[in-house]
Amino acid sequence: MAKMTGKWCTETYKDTALSFKIKKKLYSKRSKFQLVEVFETEKHGNLMALDGCYMVTTREEFVYHDMLAHVPLFAHPDPKKVLVIGGGDGGTVREVMRHKGVESIDFVEIDGDVYTVSKKYFPELVKGLEGDKRVHFKFGDGIKFVKDSKDIYDVILIDGTDPSDIAGGLFGTEFFNDVKAALKKDGIMSMQSEDPWFDLPIIKDVQARLKKTFAYSGLYLAFIPMYPSGMWSFSCASKKYDISVIRNKKSKITGFKYYTPELHSAAFKLPQFVKDGIK
Amino acid sequence: MAKMTGKWCTETYKDTALSFKIKKKLYSKRSKFQLVEVFETEKHGNLMALDGCYMVTTREEFVYHDMLAHVPLFAHPDPKKVLVIGGGDGGTVREVMRHKGVESIDFVEIDGDVYTVSKKYFPELVKGLEGDKRVHFKFGDGIKFVKDSKDIYDVILIDGTDPSDIAGGLFGTEFFNDVKAALKKDGIMSMQSEDPWFDLPIIKDVQARLKKTFAYSGLYLAFIPMYPSGMWSFSCASKKYDISVIRNKKSKITGFKYYTPELHSAAFKLPQFVKDGIK
Repeated sequence: MAKMTGKWCTETYKDTALSFKIKKKLYSKRSKFQLVEVFETEKHGNLMALDGCYMVTTREEFVYHDMLAHVPLFAHPDPKKVLVIGGGDGGTVREVMRHKGVESIDFVEIDGDVYTVSKKYFPELVKGLEGDKRVHFKFGDGIKFVKDSKDIYDVILIDGTDPSDIAGGLFGTEFFNDVKAALKKDGIMSMQSEDPWFDLPIIKDVQARLKKTFAYSGLYLAFIPMYPSGMWSFSCASKKYDISVIRNKKSKITGFKYYTPELHSAAFKLPQFVKDGIK
Repeated sequence: MAKMTGKWCTETYKDTALSFKIKKKLYSKRSKFQLVEVFETEKHGNLMALDGCYMVTTREEFVYHDMLAHVPLFAHPDPKKVLVIGGGDGGTVREVMRHKGVESIDFVEIDGDVYTVSKKYFPELVKGLEGDKRVHFKFGDGIKFVKDSKDIYDVILIDGTDPSDIAGGLFGTEFFNDVKAALKKDGIMSMQSEDPWFDLPIIKDVQARLKKTFAYSGLYLAFIPMYPSGMWSFSCASKKYDISVIRNKKSKITGFKYYTPELHSAAFKLPQFVKDGIK
């Protein structure tokens, strides 16, 4: 769990620790899958931690959700059917909903408690989800769900936690093969793929598996201050498209807080140590 | 000072704190200007803090020094005379030295103790500095030094600390006017300009002042994990050049750890909230 010391909560990751000043702890309960905690911070709004790892803050959540959702959705010329695996806080689905051309969003989160907690403490993350008929709530195991889906999706977004027990399968070859089969022939997948400063070997493995499975694979980065080093990676792949290129001209969205069309391709330009580390 | 709790040292910045696991404290002494501390960390090599703010770690120092030095030096078609203000740890000068066409590097650090401490605990940062006849050590006040320099430099790099007492003048209009006068007519300046997550108003002010002073100004970003949010900004300006464009074909340098030619321009593609914040 996130450690509390006086008015601070702390996530320790390997040899580093990141702390936020808090007003109080709002929620702490073990779900069927993980410990779910919510803190009210001084300046970052509410903060959710799963098994002691920070997931979202009200103030900064837009970075992760913008970059996981909009990069693949703008790389696809006309995304209609989207699958979101994980992302129980709702933020990724909320961003997908902004693409008017999207007709259907299957939302498969294994831990219903995360969604319930988000509804209460992060209302801006789930805003409009339940009123949007395109969103199909399917609480359950995303790995199993993908295995049973063939040639259906234009875009699959994998919004899991770290590759430990609960989310470990989301980083494996078998799963990537199932994702490939669940995508249409020009489909695109994107997933969170950990921190290059701390976990470059994990990213290297993911990239190698995606490269083996798909015709195209890529890695892009974003600044996420509530993760220990502040640098986060997303791995993406497609049978057909270079995902660093924008093709979608239908989703005319304004008012992004992080994503921009210029940043779309720029986020794929990696620092040399990251390029070297995933070779 | 950086707080020590058992085997951890902590920098608290506003409502956030970043801690590293350490083996021991190696050095702690108040210089004429500031408290200089060095810790031996578990996994990041040695860590220097000035007045309690982390400055460099052995493992990650390359990001800051690559991006402060190489972006302006590659934007200039043929940099020969370079001035480094601050940067007492030596890392910025070390990177400038890699440009073989550079004929002269004036190195003006106000606090000689920082250089002495770096020599002892960060030998890789000062490597070759004293044996390179192009490097002119001029310990003293950089603001005064610039005021006395007219039409001399191709590139000026400002490697100061946060805009508090000692470095505050490095963020002001008078200083920028003096920098402009010290540069040749096609000269370029670049400076560290704080963290967009925490200090966007400071960046906005710097950008506004540079814009008023120079024909061109710009902002670029880098991932620096030992600063509290992990996101850091550099502000640059020139009388003549768009600094996001590479012009230097003479400095054929290989073996960067962060900088790449592609990242040069990509680093100028800002997240929307940063664009909005500096408007």
